[in-house]
Amino acid sequence: VKATQQHTKEHNRNLVLRTILEQDGISRAQISRVTGLTRTTVSEIVAGLMAEGLVRETGVGSSRGGKSPILLSLVADSRQVVGLDLGPSGFQGAIVDLRGRIRQSVEVPVHDRDGEIALASVHRLLESLLGGGPRPLVGIGIGAPGLVDAAHGVVVNAVNLGWRNLPLAKLLEERHQLPVKLLNDSQAAAVGEHTFGRGYRSDSSLVVINVRHGLGAGIVLNGALFHGDGGSAGEIGHVVVVREGGAACRCGNVGCLETVASIPAVVSRAQALAGHAESTALAGVPGTVTFDLLVQAFAAGDPVARQVVLEAGRFIGMAVSGLVGTLNVRNIVLSGGVTRFGEPLLDIIRATLAQSTLTRLARDTRVEYAQLGRHEIVLGAAALVLKDYSLLFKLRGPRAMAS
Amino acid sequence: VKATQQHTKEHNRNLVLRTILEQDGISRAQISRVTGLTRTTVSEIVAGLMAEGLVRETGVGSSRGGKSPILLSLVADSRQVVGLDLGPSGFQGAIVDLRGRIRQSVEVPVHDRDGEIALASVHRLLESLLGGGPRPLVGIGIGAPGLVDAAHGVVVNAVNLGWRNLPLAKLLEERHQLPVKLLNDSQAAAVGEHTFGRGYRSDSSLVVINVRHGLGAGIVLNGALFHGDGGSAGEIGHVVVVREGGAACRCGNVGCLETVASIPAVVSRAQALAGHAESTALAGVPGTVTFDLLVQAFAAGDPVARQVVLEAGRFIGMAVSGLVGTLNVRNIVLSGGVTRFGEPLLDIIRATLAQSTLTRLARDTRVEYAQLGRHEIVLGAAALVLKDYSLLFKLRGPRAMAS
Repeated sequence: VKATQQHTKEHNRNLVLRTILEQDGISRAQISRVTGLTRTTVSEIVAGLMAEGLVRETGVGSSRGGKSPILLSLVADSRQVVGLDLGPSGFQGAIVDLRGRIRQSVEVPVHDRDGEIALASVHRLLESLLGGGPRPLVGIGIGAPGLVDAAHGVVVNAVNLGWRNLPLAKLLEERHQLPVKLLNDSQAAAVGEHTFGRGYRSDSSLVVINVRHGLGAGIVLNGALFHGDGGSAGEIGHVVVVREGGAACRCGNVGCLETVASIPAVVSRAQALAGHAESTALAGVPGTVTFDLLVQAFAAGDPVARQVVLEAGRFIGMAVSGLVGTLNVRNIVLSGGVTRFGEPLLDIIRATLAQSTLTRLARDTRVEYAQLGRHEIVLGAAALVLKDYSLLFKLRGPRAMAS
Repeated sequence: VKATQQHTKEHNRNLVLRTILEQDGISRAQISRVTGLTRTTVSEIVAGLMAEGLVRETGVGSSRGGKSPILLSLVADSRQVVGLDLGPSGFQGAIVDLRGRIRQSVEVPVHDRDGEIALASVHRLLESLLGGGPRPLVGIGIGAPGLVDAAHGVVVNAVNLGWRNLPLAKLLEERHQLPVKLLNDSQAAAVGEHTFGRGYRSDSSLVVINVRHGLGAGIVLNGALFHGDGGSAGEIGHVVVVREGGAACRCGNVGCLETVASIPAVVSRAQALAGHAESTALAGVPGTVTFDLLVQAFAAGDPVARQVVLEAGRFIGMAVSGLVGTLNVRNIVLSGGVTRFGEPLLDIIRATLAQSTLTRLARDTRVEYAQLGRHEIVLGAAALVLKDYSLLFKLRGPRAMAS
């Protein structure tokens, strides 16, 4: 009974906290109506949240006859969390508050693939963020590239960082005395968009397709990140989409989505075509087509750049069709470097979707670019920590208040 | 507080009931250890379940020093539910007990596509099942073909039955005074396999690909049927897989998976090839290739039959690759008429999967045929009702005990 009572108490406390988080400026009576908890219970819980510094009274609402209600708000700065994005070409870190606002951010470049140096860069990044005086920190969230075992906090394989089976969460927990949560970058992006992007209901579904150096998806179903039986849900970049004459993929198969739609894939395809075409700005620079150049050429209407990007868009559109046909997810978000191709890329993806799955499902689906931009992985990593409400009540790590 | 206490009470009651259901012959002390509830709470709840007739004491276990423990079992026959499979070429119905055993079953043929006649057949089927004297019925579960709005219990469109926007659940609830739950056939098959098939953990994931006249999937994620934002998760039959030169699909698009892998698709492909081939048993019967004939020819090693079935298998294998790459679901089950092609079809699906997604994911995935055979949709529809434990405590419908 004791365990059950404690569980019920925490459940109710989290329910009230979430209600205040979602409806800023709500009164105790409104919380009671929304949650079904009695006014007495709500008042007791609110008193506890105020004592913890998480909630405060911020004003008086308009009365409908009786006493004017007192309005409650979250104290957004009362807890903070560190979010890290360990992108293969540079690390970002930020201190984020309860509302997903970035209070401080740092970047460090990563130049080579030596695992020790990369790990030292993580330490430097964290020291720079944590060294600025006492903060009410509750945890560290990390989005890492490559194959990640989120359940055990291990980077299984990140080729570009030179990491294999690195128990990153444990290393950092011991060093900083803070809870650490780890996801792969696409999963972190999905959590970030779903939590802090505009307009997603807390129980809705969302797939973020992250196209950078690699290509992967993060899948949020009914409001929760979906991991799959083995923790690898979202590995759509290594589903074979070219059945004949495809290119070899780094995963060992041939014709994977990543070989036709990732940034290196479109750049190398542009390179190959530029050698044979005449009327292209890219032809003048054989051997030196870069992603920046391709983005510029595409924006300028260059025919080779258009062909390459639209081909990639059709493949991404086919992948979106599969996702929509399988999961009936109404919100599909594209993130990463490919967003620089702008509306024309979205248009071809939407057109492909319309031709490639049930009209009714395609019509109900929105395909958009990510809203959070370059901070989405940092914010998603932070959001993952914030979603574990139990952490918000543990401000007792020695480092947390005293650093 | 009252509402919360009531909620906790029901939660604990369901927890104890599920524990007895999953571990037949468990003692009160063991239940206490498994659930974390105190012995007093467990004893109170068990007394209630025994008073309801759901549980009984079935023997005495071996003692480890103290008093010998009394063992508890579910009374499988204490509640029953009706499951219906409204297949396009014939309706099946059964009365199913708490352990998924079929106590009685009935079939009625369905010959034409007149919606009124089809509905009359449903009524006849139910009357035949319900007319046999008083039974402890708690509800009716239905698996229907076509497009189903499960949330509202409406058959939106079932071409072969002549139904459009038929509020089937409401009609039957009023007629029989029993709760009615409705799913599409693939979803029902997935619930059936997950609940009553061997060896699935209650929180595991499973995708059932149902290949009959149509082709669709039922998706169980972390133990619960996944519906998608619009209720249409699993419509993989209408994802386009033939990018050039595909056949027109009844959905209005071209080249859908259903046009190359459903039973009508393989039969018509065999028909087309038989006209041009010589060394085939199917060539002798132009215009008359049936599914039965194709199954026989395939088993006999007929080259045209093999070509047709293996082509379909590769397309199904590509769809499985997409599912595994997206969801990292380790159990994929194939059901419906195509299971008659036996192991060679599974082999080509497995081989395609191995080539078409990450080796690590493919290796961890089992692709098997359904275990429940022709009753899986009836059992799945029944399971859906049984999973709503609250219904097990409501034996008060006038029809339920008095029919």
